Parts: sequence; structure tokens; C-alpha cells
Amino acid sequence: MKAIAVQPGAGVPDVVERPVPEPASGEALVRIHRVGVDGTDYEVIEGSHGGVPEGDDRLVLGHEAVGVVDDPNNTGLEAGQYVVPTVRRPPPGIETNEYFERGEPDMAPEGAYVERGIVGAHGFMAEYITSPAEFLVPISADLAPWGFLVEPLSITEKALEHARASRSAFDWQPNAALVLGTGSLGLLTVAMVAAADDFERVYCLGRKDRPHPVIDVIERLGATYIDSRETPVDEIPTASEPMDLVYEATGYAKHAFESIDALAPNGVAALLGVPSDWEFEVDGGYLHRELVLHNKAIVGSVNSNRSHFEAAIDTLAELPDWLLEAIVTGIYGLESVDRAFPHATAHAATADDESAGTPDDDTTIKTAVEFTTI
Amino acid sequence: MKAIAVQPGAGVPDVVERPVPEPASGEALVRIHRVGVDGTDYEVIEGSHGGVPEGDDRLVLGHEAVGVVDDPNNTGLEAGQYVVPTVRRPPPGIETNEYFERGEPDMAPEGAYVERGIVGAHGFMAEYITSPAEFLVPISADLAPWGFLVEPLSITEKALEHARASRSAFDWQPNAALVLGTGSLGLLTVAMVAAADDFERVYCLGRKDRPHPVIDVIERLGATYIDSRETPVDEIPTASEPMDLVYEATGYAKHAFESIDALAPNGVAALLGVPSDWEFEVDGGYLHRELVLHNKAIVGSVNSNRSHFEAAIDTLAELPDWLLEAIVTGIYGLESVDRAFPHATAHAATADDESAGTPDDDTTIKTAVEFTTI
Repeated sequence: MKAIAVQPGAGVPDVVERPVPEPASGEALVRIHRVGVDGTDYEVIEGSHGGVPEGDDRLVLGHEAVGVVDDPNNTGLEAGQYVVPTVRRPPPGIETNEYFERGEPDMAPEGAYVERGIVGAHGFMAEYITSPAEFLVPISADLAPWGFLVEPLSITEKALEHARASRSAFDWQPNAALVLGTGSLGLLTVAMVAAADDFERVYCLGRKDRPHPVIDVIERLGATYIDSRETPVDEIPTASEPMDLVYEATGYAKHAFESIDALAPNGVAALLGVPSDWEFEVDGGYLHRELVLHNKAIVGSVNSNRSHFEAAIDTLAELPDWLLEAIVTGIYGLESVDRAFPHATAHAATADDESAGTPDDDTTIKTAVEFTTI
Repeated sequence: MKAIAVQPGAGVPDVVERPVPEPASGEALVRIHRVGVDGTDYEVIEGSHGGVPEGDDRLVLGHEAVGVVDDPNNTGLEAGQYVVPTVRRPPPGIETNEYFERGEPDMAPEGAYVERGIVGAHGFMAEYITSPAEFLVPISADLAPWGFLVEPLSITEKALEHARASRSAFDWQPNAALVLGTGSLGLLTVAMVAAADDFERVYCLGRKDRPHPVIDVIERLGATYIDSRETPVDEIPTASEPMDLVYEATGYAKHAFESIDALAPNGVAALLGVPSDWEFEVDGGYLHRELVLHNKAIVGSVNSNRSHFEAAIDTLAELPDWLLEAIVTGIYGLESVDRAFPHATAHAATADDESAGTPDDDTTIKTAVEFTTI
């Protein structure tokens, strides 16, 4: 079968030939329909994040997939059922551990998991994959064409759940939310927060020049675009309003610290990005004091578990078609894999990297690879 | 009547003469028994925090009090009932606001409250005070001698409640807790965390040379003393173990950032200190990434509300007498007020300031002023 693999740090992804996997006991064989591409894939490609499975020199990419059960292999799944696979698995040679037993592999520390398509395990960019049935989340046939968006949506489901939990010891009454980043994760989050009951006003920060399709999406969602070149994060409370929630999806480390300033009293910043080392000066006394005197919180969040995938499928069902069509700017077959990875050779930054600097003129938002049509 | 007042930044506290206050409708008249002294009092004395009520040039100090109802004034309280007053009140001229209506004045932003004895309202270091009955929390006669510890205990009740809430979206299984600071708040917190069901091992960081009564208290509580001059906060995971909870009670801003390193995956740092501005360099990329990849959280916490005072009274009832006697190193009458404020002229740091540096040889832990015996 065909698969898309990469030697991290040493090349661009290309199509390789691999044997069709054989499902072990408890595993189903899944025929892959579509797999999304995101910033993490670019980090894996450039070698700054993740790594190949032991004993291999290439990694099959892909962690945002949707497929159809080809051989249920007595797992209880039905042939023809569309499914979205979750990402984390127990490390090689370990059947399970306490985090997987609790259904919370997203809370497992390093060493207690591998991530398919990211670190230590091959991903989903292949014609067929096998997976234990417990890691395959059913999705309806009508949502299946967009099923590769479930994984990124699940990331935000978890982050918002943790952010809200951090404010659950009191009667939090949020109004305004700010999303940092205009990548696909940022835009999906703007849509989710705009649709949520607890936020009346949503803002999204980026560095795009008007006119731009991304700004059109933000505004059609009823949100307000903020240009980071005109309004730095820490000036947003004065220029717009203080934010009850800041959702950071840029991986730009200064934003994490500036978010403390952007928050309203009792607000929470959810951090999602994975920056590299970067030393800079902060007014640590001020930031510390600001966190304390205004009861502010910062919550880091990574990965997601099956409950978040299930919530994400419900969320996906509510998102308007125009939004999905606007965000997914290209779906490419194996014959044009290079078009699915437009940034793989162009630069090393992540797709969601929205650091201040030169304008981002790229109109690509989200791409996917299609292995079979449905 | 006698009261203890200060001109912030311009002097040391001294005894002044004030008229006995008249309770307004809904207020009771309380005869004050004892009032504790803490780091915030020293910040007020030196003028770095808080401020006098409008139209006054001196502030009556004191926010950790216990007294006895002298005139219930038809509030429903009974004469002779011991009470602990809470600290925040609506600003002058405002009867209430949404935060007070919800019973959560601790979550009110600046401008939506005054704090008795700290900012904008006279405190409890007086022979008599008046207070709306809703801000007077009943305490039993046998606990009343230690009732001035209820306010600091309530600060930790709130901080721990918020820290635990931040971890409530998943099955948090903490084991180890680290308290930064060996002041009275730090020691009371060590006792509370050591008695809690969710922490098996408790550590307390300070900079005292052995032998020292504070180290004796830590060890008698079953906790482990860590000398910050030997083991910086960010090296604690290697030297001891990673911490599921870090409770910062030093006001030393670098600790807030180093705590991210001290935390175990899924851990939370509760920040309590109120440092001044201080610029320094951090590896912001690393700290941001560490928060995200290990699902860590930081929760700032200030003040407390009536529910935390009630929980603190329950906690106080469980604390052993030897601990209270060890922590309260002096109770002084009005004739020796200077002994109740041993640091008021010596230096400008807060009582809980545990920044790395010269050893702290002081054996004073907690003092209180006694206005009447009971």
C-alpha cells in the first residue's frame, strides 16, 4: 500500500510503499479516507518535535484522520462504519498503564505514551491502518468527509474544558474571549467559542493584511480581527477590552506572558503552542503580582482523549458548511502530496506560528491528503 | 478607645485615641480580643501596598482579628458570641455590588472593594469595631484565643480550593506538595496540606540554619525542610521529587517561574505572594512548552470569602495545640506594640519573604496584639 513518510529533519514527505498491516487481536483494519495536515506535522518534518519509532529511520506521518472499518476483526465494530482514530497509544511492549486505564492518555507524562504520526509510532497517512477498537471513535457517514477536523477540534475541547475547570471554584461570568492565531486551529476555536453560551464577544489576533480570506472567516463568525502589528497582545485591554479567556495557538512564547496582561480579573489563559527555547526579559514581579491580585490562571493543555473526540464530533455537526469549506483550502490525492504540504520546504515555522513580524500573505489555511474517496 | 494606626511609608505603628464607633443599622459592635500581624501589615506600614481611607492621613491597621459581640444591635447575633471579621467591604458610598451579592468579594476587581486594615478602610486593631453582621463569622469560645489565625488559614483554604479546581477536569492523583516560605502562612499551609487526604509527602522551602524552631515545626509536622541556598526551586525535582502542588508564599517573583520546573506533569502552582516590579530573564520558550506538554497550571489567588473563613475555623479546630503555640511566638498588649511589629523598622521586606540570600536568623514567626483578655 501507499503511505506518506518522512525522515525528520532530512527531507520532505514523500510516498512510500508499505505492507498492508495485519490487525492483531482486538484491532480493526481501517481504510483511510482523509488525513489533515497541521503545524505539528511541519515540526515533525523539520525534526524539531517528535521522532521515528525505534528501529526505523522514517516516520509515517498523520494524526488527524478519518477512515472506514474494512475488517472489524471481531472487535464489535461494523464493516463500513466511519471512524476517527485517537492519537496516543501505550509505549511499545506495554499493554496499558494507569493513564490509558483511566481513559486519560492525554494526561500521561513523557515516556508513558507514543503518538501516532508524531513520536514513536507510525501515523495515519497510509491506505490502511490497524488500531485497537477502543481508539477508534465512530462518526456518521455525513460528517466523515470532514472527519479529519475532529482531532484538532478535540484539542480545543480539552483546552476549553480545562480552562473552564480552573474557574469552577467560583461563579465565573465571562464575556470576552481572545484567540491568538489565525491558523486552522485558531479559526476552529473562534467558531467554537463564538457558538458557546459563555462568551458574548470573540476576538482573533493575527498578522494578515486586508483583504484576506482568513479575516473574512473571522468576521463572518461574528468575531473581531485584531492585527498584532498594530495592537500587541498586552495592549489589547486598552485597545479593545480585557479578556476573560485567552486561547494561545501560536507557539510564540512571548504571547504566553503577554496574555497575563490581556486577561481581565479572574480570567484564564489556555496555552496550546509548543515553542522552542527562547530567553527573553519579563517583568516577573509585575506578572506574578498581576496573577495573584486579580486571581488569574494559566493552563497548559496538550493532546486530548476519547471523550474530547466524542465532544468534537458533536461540535463538528454544528459547524456551518461555509466555514468548513473556507477553512479547508485544499484536499489532495497521492499524486500531488507536495501541494498538501506547501510549507514543508518553504520555511521551518509551524503553520499556526503568528509571531509579530512580516505579514503572512499565504492563503492556505488547512490541507488534507485523500487516500480513497467515499 | 485605643487603636493602632500608621501613616504608610512615613512611620511605625503607634497607639492613637479614636472614638468608639457607633454601629449603623445592620451592624454589630464588636469588642476586639486579638489581632494578628502578617507580611501584608509590613507592606502597608512601608507604603508599598494598600492605602489610607479617603480624607484620612492614617490607617488603623489589622485584618486578622477575633473579637466578641458587645452590642448585637438587632442583627441576630448574640452578645458574647465570638466572631472573626472578614476583610473586604464594598467601596465607600456603595451598598453592594455583584461580587458581594454572590458572596465572592474575594473575586472582585480593584475598585470594587476596600480591605479593612489594608486599603481604603480602617482595620481591626482597635478596642472596638463595627461591622455588618454578614461579615462576622461565629467562632466557638474555645477556639477564640487562636481566632486571629482564621484569616490566614482562609487564604490557604481559598488557594487550595482554586488549585484543586484547576485539576478537576481529569482524575488528578497528587502525592507530593511543596510550600515555598517558612513564614506563618507557609507553616500553617504545611500543616493543612500534611493533614489533607490528597498529599502523602510535603516539603517546605526556606533559608534557615539548623537548629531552628521553624525547621523543628516543619519536621514535627512530618514534612521535609529544603534549604533554598542548597537546593534552588528548579532543582527540587532532581534533588527530591517533582511536585504535584507548589504553594508560593514568599512574594519572591523568580519562584513563580521556577515553580513551573518544580512541578510534576499535571501539577499546579498556587501563587499567593505580592512582589514589586522586577525585570529578569527567563527561558520563556522552555517555560511555555513545559506548561503545555505536561498539562501544568498556574493559579493566582488573593483574599478569601466567608465560606473560606468557615472552612478555616473547621481547620483550626483540627490543628494541634503544640503547633499553634510554636507558630505564635508572641502576643503583646498595647503597652508593648513595638514588640508586636519587630520588623517595622528593621527592614522593608515582608515577613514571608524567603528570597535566596542571607540566612534569616529571626525566630519570630507570628505575633498578635491583644486588646482585651477573655
